[in-house]
Parts: sequence; structure tokens; C-alpha cells
Amino acid sequence: MIYLDHAATSPVRRESLEAMWPHLTAAFGNPSSSHGLGAEAARALAEARAQVAEVAGARPGDVVFTSGGTEADNLAVKGIALAKPRGRHIVVSAVEHEAVLESARYLERLHGFDVDILGVDEFGRVRPEALAAVLREDTALVSVQLANNEVGTVQPVAELAELARRAGAAMHSDAVQAAGWLPLALDALGVDALSLAGHKVGAPKGTGALIVRGRVPLEPVIHGGGQERGRRSGTENVAGAVAFATALRLAEQERADASARAAALTARLIAEIGSLVPDARLTGDPMHRLPAAASFLFPRTSGEAVLLELERDGVLTSSGSACAVGRDEPSHVLTAMGVPAELAQTAVRFTLGRETTPDDIESAIRAVVRAVAAVRGLGA
Amino acid sequence: MIYLDHAATSPVRRESLEAMWPHLTAAFGNPSSSHGLGAEAARALAEARAQVAEVAGARPGDVVFTSGGTEADNLAVKGIALAKPRGRHIVVSAVEHEAVLESARYLERLHGFDVDILGVDEFGRVRPEALAAVLREDTALVSVQLANNEVGTVQPVAELAELARRAGAAMHSDAVQAAGWLPLALDALGVDALSLAGHKVGAPKGTGALIVRGRVPLEPVIHGGGQERGRRSGTENVAGAVAFATALRLAEQERADASARAAALTARLIAEIGSLVPDARLTGDPMHRLPAAASFLFPRTSGEAVLLELERDGVLTSSGSACAVGRDEPSHVLTAMGVPAELAQTAVRFTLGRETTPDDIESAIRAVVRAVAAVRGLGA
Repeated sequence: MIYLDHAATSPVRRESLEAMWPHLTAAFGNPSSSHGLGAEAARALAEARAQVAEVAGARPGDVVFTSGGTEADNLAVKGIALAKPRGRHIVVSAVEHEAVLESARYLERLHGFDVDILGVDEFGRVRPEALAAVLREDTALVSVQLANNEVGTVQPVAELAELARRAGAAMHSDAVQAAGWLPLALDALGVDALSLAGHKVGAPKGTGALIVRGRVPLEPVIHGGGQERGRRSGTENVAGAVAFATALRLAEQERADASARAAALTARLIAEIGSLVPDARLTGDPMHRLPAAASFLFPRTSGEAVLLELERDGVLTSSGSACAVGRDEPSHVLTAMGVPAELAQTAVRFTLGRETTPDDIESAIRAVVRAVAAVRGLGA
Repeated sequence: MIYLDHAATSPVRRESLEAMWPHLTAAFGNPSSSHGLGAEAARALAEARAQVAEVAGARPGDVVFTSGGTEADNLAVKGIALAKPRGRHIVVSAVEHEAVLESARYLERLHGFDVDILGVDEFGRVRPEALAAVLREDTALVSVQLANNEVGTVQPVAELAELARRAGAAMHSDAVQAAGWLPLALDALGVDALSLAGHKVGAPKGTGALIVRGRVPLEPVIHGGGQERGRRSGTENVAGAVAFATALRLAEQERADASARAAALTARLIAEIGSLVPDARLTGDPMHRLPAAASFLFPRTSGEAVLLELERDGVLTSSGSACAVGRDEPSHVLTAMGVPAELAQTAVRFTLGRETTPDDIESAIRAVVRAVAAVRGLGA
């Protein structure tokens, strides 16, 4: 099996499993319990929190552990918007993950917010002028992802954040797809909040965090006993937090090497597909892109049919966001980039992991050539 | 170590760990992915869903996997209330878990709901007449727990649900503490929704479910890609769901035996403490109570001091809800039952697990006698 769908989910790292194991067995305490078993769990949670904070150049108190990237996005968008009672306007980009878009629509539907959705250029990038044009006195929040999950375009988040800051709005960025590939330092990005998902960096599903500056008021999404400094209630998933922190820390340590390696493999994939399938079209920004992602349009095919052919050769990929599978609508990301609906249905996304090898990529290239030809009825 | 704090959290069962393991290793797919690895994850998730549904006599489609009991309570209370636009009134009991109470307060604060909080009798029980007196035409939801987490009182949920049904209100019950000890069949309870937490039945923290009748409209708490039939977005925690289903299924299979065994041990604990610490007072309902829980007031002590003394003898207990540890206020549950604030601070809760032995209980009894005497300055 050649797994090139790491943007959908990644295998759990061995180190992450080993780190969580004690907390699934003997060290099973509730961190809120006052006895020794509880204190042991609280210490492990604090250590995990410090590790996650360090990766983002944040303080431990800025880390709110969540059940994943989607919950982190919900907490950022709803939490910041609802805690700023005078601001009833938020801005998101058209290519955000559904977690951000649907949170924005919820604010519109149930809380009367005005939502401006920023268009993108043909490469999927938000233009800072577009943000400047819609910022208002009552803008509570701007949310623009660090990198796109379908086409890998990296957004000019620092520039956008500076505009948001000057307008007095908070800035959130969904860094779920960027983690492990791009720097996550809050200061350099200029953001107030950053969403992360564990299962994209080698931790189990059901883990993640919102890193949010302590000074930013936050209405919780999940209310209750007041864990996570009152920002996210519910008994803490200690094993999950430890696994997530371990995977994130290692991903950060290996980031430079892993990114360089993945970028070289991706470049080879792009060049060979461009040469062997001449009408294939790379989507996303040619320069500002994730090192481990490449998505293509294969005109005169169906993306789903190409996927099936690729799978026959053991190559697992995706037509786009795993979160949108099963829906018939064309990708909202490609549509926002001006790709016609019919052409958008021919998309195939390849996302590499840190263990992807040159041989994997050579096999994938051969498989793509065969698959596209097969779907086009040109034989295999 | 004699662990008598199972209401705070329980060890993970070996069977649960073994069941989740494949999904933390080779079978790591995203259930929404269309390739074989995704389909394998989707099948495991479907099987887990069917197992959880069976325990509650529900349909698989009624199960919404969540990150735990607190999220399930949030989804039930907010989700049902917000999806019923004409109903702006909800009713909860005064002894609910903070997850329910704070969700109700959120609806009050941000959505203009009227919240009626039902008082309880000295045993912590809601009187059906009290509910009947506050039900209104616009009551959207009644939420009363199946069993209390601090004093173990079991509520007359079926009676309350019948009143709610007749008034046209939905009925939710937080069954987090009841799971594994009481029957959970939706039909017998007459409820529309039931919250469950994995880590109280031998699954890892970060798992749980809201079981909610498919006919009940639900506004999600976590919006996004539309997983869980649009009721709870975010990549599904497959390993967690499998672990939870495994533990819940086993807990249900062993429920009758485990309850009988725990009830006998608890009865022994109650009788001996009553005899050896004559002014100790059992809290909660003398008849309608969880088989594995007994909480006491020890006048002229501090509950926290008694806990510390108990821990010196290796007996781990709690002063009440783990979720409220670190707060100085007296328990809202005991206060609602009419216990004066000062006396409420003398509470100590013992909650047994399925592996608690008669020897554990004998040791705990001896430790309690010593601890109370020590705290009262009568020497050890």
C-alpha cells in the first residue's frame, strides 16, 4: 500500500503510542482528583501542555486541549466572536475548512452576525486588499487558514493578521494542515489563535488544541466543570493530550528535514505528471504551497474513477477533503478558485507523509499515468 | 492502592484497549475516505455504533459519538433547545452535573431562554409534582440525570419523562454515572436522549455518546464537515468509539452481577461506618440509589482532611465531583438537598468499581474510622 492521503489522516507514530500507554493503563487518574493518582494525571497534562505551547511559542496557559481540529475551529470562531459582544461582524475566507465556514454560518443563523466571505485568486490565495476592504469597526474576528487542505495553498497569514490587528479584530488561523510542515510560532504569524489536530501530525484521532492568547476573551463551546481554565469543560483526555504533544513536538523537531524531503518528492511528482499527462493541471499556488501536497485536475476523467484505478495499483489518494466525501457538490475550494464545477470533479489530491519514499512516488507516477489513461478509455 | 473513586474515572478495561489497538496502528484510516483503508475504519465505526445502540435499545442512527459525557450533555441541552425555535423554556434539576447546568445558563445568557431549576428533597430526588408545576406550553426540554454523581441518588426519570412527553417537551437524561449499574433502555426510561461517558465504564477518557432519537431535531454544538449525520462534526475518533462500545457492551453484560456484588459491598460499608462512626450521615436517597456509591458527611471534620488521612492508608476517594475540585464553594448538590454549607464541606464519597473486593471494603472501613478520629484530633 502506498498511502498518499496524509491530509485525510496519518498513521499514529510509535513514540506517540508509547507516550500515551501509561495513561491508558496504570496512570488512569482524573487530573481534577485531589489524590496522588489525580496529581500524576495533572502533571502529565501540564507537561503535554507545555510541550504544545513551546511548538507555538506560546505560554502553557494559552493551550486549550480539544477533541480535534474541528472543535478547535469551532471554539476559535464562535468562542472569540461570542465573547466580543460589541462586534457582530466576522470575516473568513471562501476556502476555509467546513469547521470554520459552518461555525461562521451558525453565528449568522443563530446570533445575527454579519459574515464576510473573502474570495481567493485562481491559486486559492486571499489578497490582503480584499481583507482591508471589508474590515469594519465592529469586526470581531478574521479567520484565514494557514494552508489549504485540498490544494495546499499557503495564505499570507502574517499580512492578514497585521490588517486585522490594526482594525482591532482578533485573528485566528486554522493550522491543521500546516502543522509539521510550516512554522507555527504565534508571534511570527501575528495571530491570536491557532487550531491544531492531532491525527494530522501522528497522534490519534480525537486529539487537538486551540492555542489562544490568554488575553483573548473566549466563550466556551463546551460548558461544564470548568476544565482548561474554564475554556473547555469535560474530563481531560490525558492520554490523548500526551500523545498529541509527543507527536507535535517530534513533528516540529523533524520539520525542516521532513519538509525538504517532501518538497523534493512532491516536485518530482508534479514534474512527472506534468510531463506524462500533459493536460493535467496542478491546482493551488505554484509558490506558496505546502511541501507535502499536490492536487491535480485531470480533464476528461472523473476524479472518483481515477481514485479507484489508483487503488487497484495500491495507491491510496483522495479527491479532496475527506470531510466532504459522499457529497455530490463540487469542492467549494476549487469553485472559489474559479474552477468550473465539471472540471472540479476531476480533482485528485496526493498528500505525502514523513515516511513517503522516492519509490512510493515513482510507483504513484506510473499508477497515475495508467489510471488516467484507463479512465479515459485509452486502455491500461 | 484501594481505588474507591470510580465516579471520577475508572481504569481502562483490557478488552477495551485490545479492541482499540488495531485502530491506533494498521487500521488508521479516516472513515470518510473513499478508499479501502477508509472503508475499514467506517465499518469499525458502524459496528461500534450498533453495539452502543443495542445497549440503549436504540437504532444505530440514534448514536452520536462525542468526546465524552460533558460534550454529550452540551449537545443534548443546547442542541435540542436551539433546534426548537418556538420553545424558549427549559427545565433542569438543581443537582445536575455542571455540564447540564452550565449549558442551561449559556442558553439563558446568550439565547434568552427561561430556565427553571427544579429543587430536590433532602434525599436529592426531584418530585414529579415539582416538574408538573413548571412545565409550560413553550417548554422545549427537560433534563434530569438518571443518577447523581455526588450522592448516587437515582431519579424517577420515567415518571418525569412521561410528564415532559405530555407537555410536548423533549426529555434528556444524563446517564454518565448510571451506565454499567442501571438499565439504559430508552423506551423504558421514556427519554429522547441519554448522555454517556466512556471513562466511567472502562473506556479511555475522551470518548462518549449522546443517544438521541432520530426524530428529535438537533442543532450541533460542533459544526463542520457533517460527520455523525450532521449532528457532530470532526473526524471520528474510531479507536475511541470502538473502545467505548466494547467497554459499554461488557458493562451491560456484567451489569446484573456487578450491581449485586457492588450493592452488597456498599451495604457493608454503609452499615459499618454507621456503626463505627455513629454521627456519620449517609447522603442521598436511602432506597433509590446507585449500587456502587456511598457518600457520607462526617461532622466535626473537613472532608479534604479526611481524604488525606485515607490516602495515607492507600484508600483513594473524593470529596464529591472531580469536576468541582479546587473550588471553595460547597457542593451544589448537597446545598440543594438542604445540607448547610459548613457541613457540606465534611463530605467524603466512596464509589466502587467492578473489581472492588470485600477486602478492599474492610480496609476502607478501618481507614475511615482511623481517618475521622485523626482529623477530630482523637489520635490515630
